[in-house]
Amino acid sequence: MSTLWTQRYAQRTQRMHSSALGDLLKLTEPSSVISFAGGLPAADMFPITELQEACQRVLAEHGARALQYGPTQGYRPLRELITRHTARYGITITPDHVLVASGAQQALDLIGKVFINPGDRILVEAPTHVGALQAWNSYQAEYVSVPLDAEGIQMDLVEGALRSGPKLLYVLPNFHNPTGITLSLARRLKLMAQADHYGVPIIEDDPYGQLRYEGEHIAPLAVLDGRLHTREAPPYSGNVLYLSTFSQTLAPGLRLGWIIAPMEVMQRLVHAKQGADLQTSLFVQMVAHEVAQGGFLDHHVRDLRVIYRERRDAMLMALRHYFPPEATWTEPQGGLFIWVTLPPTLDATTVLQEALAANVAFAPGPAFFAQGGGHHMMRLNFTCMEPDRIAEGIRRLGGVLTHCMEQSA
Amino acid sequence: MSTLWTQRYAQRTQRMHSSALGDLLKLTEPSSVISFAGGLPAADMFPITELQEACQRVLAEHGARALQYGPTQGYRPLRELITRHTARYGITITPDHVLVASGAQQALDLIGKVFINPGDRILVEAPTHVGALQAWNSYQAEYVSVPLDAEGIQMDLVEGALRSGPKLLYVLPNFHNPTGITLSLARRLKLMAQADHYGVPIIEDDPYGQLRYEGEHIAPLAVLDGRLHTREAPPYSGNVLYLSTFSQTLAPGLRLGWIIAPMEVMQRLVHAKQGADLQTSLFVQMVAHEVAQGGFLDHHVRDLRVIYRERRDAMLMALRHYFPPEATWTEPQGGLFIWVTLPPTLDATTVLQEALAANVAFAPGPAFFAQGGGHHMMRLNFTCMEPDRIAEGIRRLGGVLTHCMEQSA
Repeated sequence: MSTLWTQRYAQRTQRMHSSALGDLLKLTEPSSVISFAGGLPAADMFPITELQEACQRVLAEHGARALQYGPTQGYRPLRELITRHTARYGITITPDHVLVASGAQQALDLIGKVFINPGDRILVEAPTHVGALQAWNSYQAEYVSVPLDAEGIQMDLVEGALRSGPKLLYVLPNFHNPTGITLSLARRLKLMAQADHYGVPIIEDDPYGQLRYEGEHIAPLAVLDGRLHTREAPPYSGNVLYLSTFSQTLAPGLRLGWIIAPMEVMQRLVHAKQGADLQTSLFVQMVAHEVAQGGFLDHHVRDLRVIYRERRDAMLMALRHYFPPEATWTEPQGGLFIWVTLPPTLDATTVLQEALAANVAFAPGPAFFAQGGGHHMMRLNFTCMEPDRIAEGIRRLGGVLTHCMEQSA
Repeated sequence: MSTLWTQRYAQRTQRMHSSALGDLLKLTEPSSVISFAGGLPAADMFPITELQEACQRVLAEHGARALQYGPTQGYRPLRELITRHTARYGITITPDHVLVASGAQQALDLIGKVFINPGDRILVEAPTHVGALQAWNSYQAEYVSVPLDAEGIQMDLVEGALRSGPKLLYVLPNFHNPTGITLSLARRLKLMAQADHYGVPIIEDDPYGQLRYEGEHIAPLAVLDGRLHTREAPPYSGNVLYLSTFSQTLAPGLRLGWIIAPMEVMQRLVHAKQGADLQTSLFVQMVAHEVAQGGFLDHHVRDLRVIYRERRDAMLMALRHYFPPEATWTEPQGGLFIWVTLPPTLDATTVLQEALAANVAFAPGPAFFAQGGGHHMMRLNFTCMEPDRIAEGIRRLGGVLTHCMEQSA
């Protein structure tokens, strides 16, 4: 019977693949492997006690409501909390501008559903978030990619890319996944001005914005959008959809992210969400709200920053100590990732085979490029283990690299 | 700035609308309204204590795992539980044939993502589940609809519809939403044979199969698929995708459904799910597994059957008592819904305005028809309130109908 199904797959499935990362994570399941491959927050920091208490309270006080069908746009008190949180960043919205999604991955999928016709081009960074490519490949998106340097997307190349008529522009301005690079204020202003000039809306993906370990906060693109500051404009009527998530500040297993959007876009997103999964679990939304309110989230994020900064520093120190001098890497001011560039004679996918044999893993570069590249690059996640284990993993990986370089010499 | 977004919506959004039901549910929020409009299980039957205990155990014993990223296909012990459950119905599968989705609504969306090209025709019942139309409209599906009679889809009309070359055939054989009708065994066998003859795969949607209040269980289409019984065939290699959910047996607020699929389809579904939302909340899956295992679910479903049967009977009795003799209705052997046919001079949408003024609500027929129809029909949900309130609501609605008939006479 295989043929009966096979003949019937939609064209879009030709672009749908299991991510290299997903497959890789399976290889790194044995606990003997020190894996820097995932994008994992620290499980030892999950607020388990607070979640236990919240589950009890929500079920005891609002069980019948939490477990019934609920509103597609999301639990209103949670949207109010997100609104207050967002206001601190200078983004002025109401709860009506917030859609609760089943993780930021669903936010990306819903954006694809609302905007992308087959063949539409999306301007993305090179490299970029592999989850966005996975979501949008299923809508048969095409891509125009613009490389990054230490300050983020290269502005001298953006204008040409914008001139080619992309439908949307997708950026991760803070502690970019996979590179850890932060887009400078000067470039944010230029990027907004250019996107405005060419009439291209922006998808601003900010999963890690709160996880800054040093340096000054830089205003989100959604705030720099000049139109928002005119008195005539209704709140949040601008050119930017802003995405974020509780995956990094509470826990990814809750699957809670959100989209901030102008009202007219919100209406379409809600329709898309209704067809996609009706609503995100109201129970989980109420539990997250219960935990996050009353200042706990701020306190918790402060703790995360301290721990993650130590882990970042441990990885940077180990890289300096154990990696061959021919390798270079980013020094991120926040987030989860360091991006390593190996000598071009090395192929990261080949290195990974040897690394797995040495019980250490990373995410090889090519998965993060929409239009090819990155074969001698790797992403390292520094948040999910303690400094000693980070140092040991980087020591193993340094040995593998040295060995591979000797072989390729 | 509106225009910037407006110009950019994908073609598929032209077919995406908020469901009439979704909008209607908003109108029925005041507690003074007795609403038969939703598809709601009984909130007073939710196993709140068991869920509280399960949350505690899962977080205490497996918190770090439950809250971290997890496998896209779903929590394996939950897939094993679904496998055992499914085996009782005679569907022989392994956990590899099960995908856990964020509710049956997401199952429908993922099927759309994997199979439907713009313009593809889906053979559906008339009326059919509005959630399926919502999910598939966003993939620009077209429909061929075949009406139902008391035994289900009208087989003399199915063959012509199959001959027109639909890509998939979608049916709800048990206690069909919205009509409550059950597809007879004779027709199930014929339907399988014909679908087989014309090479059209079947989507069998079975959210209510366990909620049978009288009569004999009838084998699912997935079991009647003859090919499954040949020794040569690998397990579950047939012509049917089978969908179900925990929304009716545990609680809809958990957002847990599943798809049973042959391996080759499963691979595509997992890729689609990865791009759509990475995974369904592992925490919620572990909690559901904790509650459902050890026989609780069977026990709970037995209790639900007793309560729901009483409520169905209360509604049927009230209908006989209060509705005008010109109205007819189905007498379902299970499920959540009774389907009423009014005299053709009445328009259900107009009746609804008057009903809301009398503080009673129902779901008007037209939303459930892919190709028009049902203007003098209504769906009544009997599971979400106690018999006295059902009787009072039907009394009010009977009065409204009588008044409308007098006016239209």
